[in-house]
Amino acid sequence: MKIGIIGLGLIGGSIAKECKEYGYEVLGCDLNTVHAEQALALNLVDKMVALDQLIAEVEIIGVCIPVDLIANIIPKILDKINPNQTVFDVGSTKKEICDAVRNHENRNRFVAAHPLAGTEFSGPSAAILNLFRNKKNLICEEELADKDAVQNILQVFEVLGMQSSFLNPNDHDKHMAYVSHLSHVSAFTLALTVLDIEKDEKLIFNLASTGFESTVRLAKSNPTTWSSIFDKNRHHLSDALENYIQHLTAFKKVIDEENTTKSIEMMDRANDIKRVLKGIVVNS
Amino acid sequence: MKIGIIGLGLIGGSIAKECKEYGYEVLGCDLNTVHAEQALALNLVDKMVALDQLIAEVEIIGVCIPVDLIANIIPKILDKINPNQTVFDVGSTKKEICDAVRNHENRNRFVAAHPLAGTEFSGPSAAILNLFRNKKNLICEEELADKDAVQNILQVFEVLGMQSSFLNPNDHDKHMAYVSHLSHVSAFTLALTVLDIEKDEKLIFNLASTGFESTVRLAKSNPTTWSSIFDKNRHHLSDALENYIQHLTAFKKVIDEENTTKSIEMMDRANDIKRVLKGIVVNS
Repeated sequence: MKIGIIGLGLIGGSIAKECKEYGYEVLGCDLNTVHAEQALALNLVDKMVALDQLIAEVEIIGVCIPVDLIANIIPKILDKINPNQTVFDVGSTKKEICDAVRNHENRNRFVAAHPLAGTEFSGPSAAILNLFRNKKNLICEEELADKDAVQNILQVFEVLGMQSSFLNPNDHDKHMAYVSHLSHVSAFTLALTVLDIEKDEKLIFNLASTGFESTVRLAKSNPTTWSSIFDKNRHHLSDALENYIQHLTAFKKVIDEENTTKSIEMMDRANDIKRVLKGIVVNS
Repeated sequence: MKIGIIGLGLIGGSIAKECKEYGYEVLGCDLNTVHAEQALALNLVDKMVALDQLIAEVEIIGVCIPVDLIANIIPKILDKINPNQTVFDVGSTKKEICDAVRNHENRNRFVAAHPLAGTEFSGPSAAILNLFRNKKNLICEEELADKDAVQNILQVFEVLGMQSSFLNPNDHDKHMAYVSHLSHVSAFTLALTVLDIEKDEKLIFNLASTGFESTVRLAKSNPTTWSSIFDKNRHHLSDALENYIQHLTAFKKVIDEENTTKSIEMMDRANDIKRVLKGIVVNS
């Protein structure tokens, strides 16, 4: 199998590394020349080539560039492929991308994917093996792709160790706003709040324990990457933030009113996240 | 050395276990009979005794009960000790406790401490070795305690593997509001927001990745414990929440206005938390 990865950052680089480890021949392409050199030096790919050469040579093309550039490039790639090639993307929002290719004559060779994995690090040097192992992958509008195209991409994600599920793009973006994008905003703004109040940085370091570090971990994430994601999922994220601010305001009121019964009741409900995260699903 | 631990939950149990491992004789006392039996069965203590017997027998008394009960019990314990005994507490807020003992005739035998460690679990079964290893301990109003009393307690925390610093109770409570209590409210309300919107729990589990799990981890914490802490630190926490809500509202506005330049600028500032958490302190 010959696979081409466009964009060798954290996600693209990790996919390349894993595919190479598995035995695929991996071609890479990255407009960022520093990243291109790093990807080669780190042995993430067999060779780095120009975009047209990559499209001409490989069976599967993975688009792993920042989410704000994906909707623009996919149609151009689809223009150039033959009916035996398959293209997938890994963008963190899906509606705009699916909309952009829906009427393309080669739409049937495209699979819109979103592997739910990542770290707070970025660039080729952040690429690691096992980033995706036992994580979930989501695929949108698979009904618009040929069955063999979907199979090809499912196989790539199986090589990564992922199980795939199917979801429509709007539901995908709405749910991601809550379970991913909101967590990031929550962490970024928590970091800003603490940094703003604690001018004596030494003191933060002395006083911060593992609880703070865990909650604020995502605030280390790449601003450019996340700015694009937030922008592409603006409406759903804005709703999620509105809801979150309402819950915080309600909790603050309970604290201000010394209503410990109510605060315990709210935290008891929040504790239920244990059961959800464990996957012990009880349908009520 | 003979040490007595009152309250064998996560913190008290872990202190007892570590002291016993080190070779101290450890007596325990817990009004919760289930916890008392568990502590003995788990070998956290050498024996469980009544409060008065504990006070009569040990050299060092550690008060590890919920923070809303500490200010009430410490004066009663100080009433009964002799000048060679030392009492410490581990409460997560310090001002009320310090205020409650300030004029006690045996104030000089009390050391107000706060070991910055914990997990989201609770009770004797949550007690573990190395919970405190390489973490920070804070001590308030050490100038009101005898030098040998402070030395005795510093030695206990050294056994736990902790380095101690000194801070006044009001500063302690204010800083904790930001670097600990706010993180907990942030996580509890994030869990509530997501649980409320995502009625289909299976979907949350399918979509939630490690980023969400890390940010929401503290929402698994014990509601009764945290309700007491929030209540005891109501004013500082309310200010911190106000600041956090303002930052979130500002961030939402930036998203709504599609101002990616500003959102990148805000996240760049938030990224600075990396440097702080690493302890690479640059005073500007």
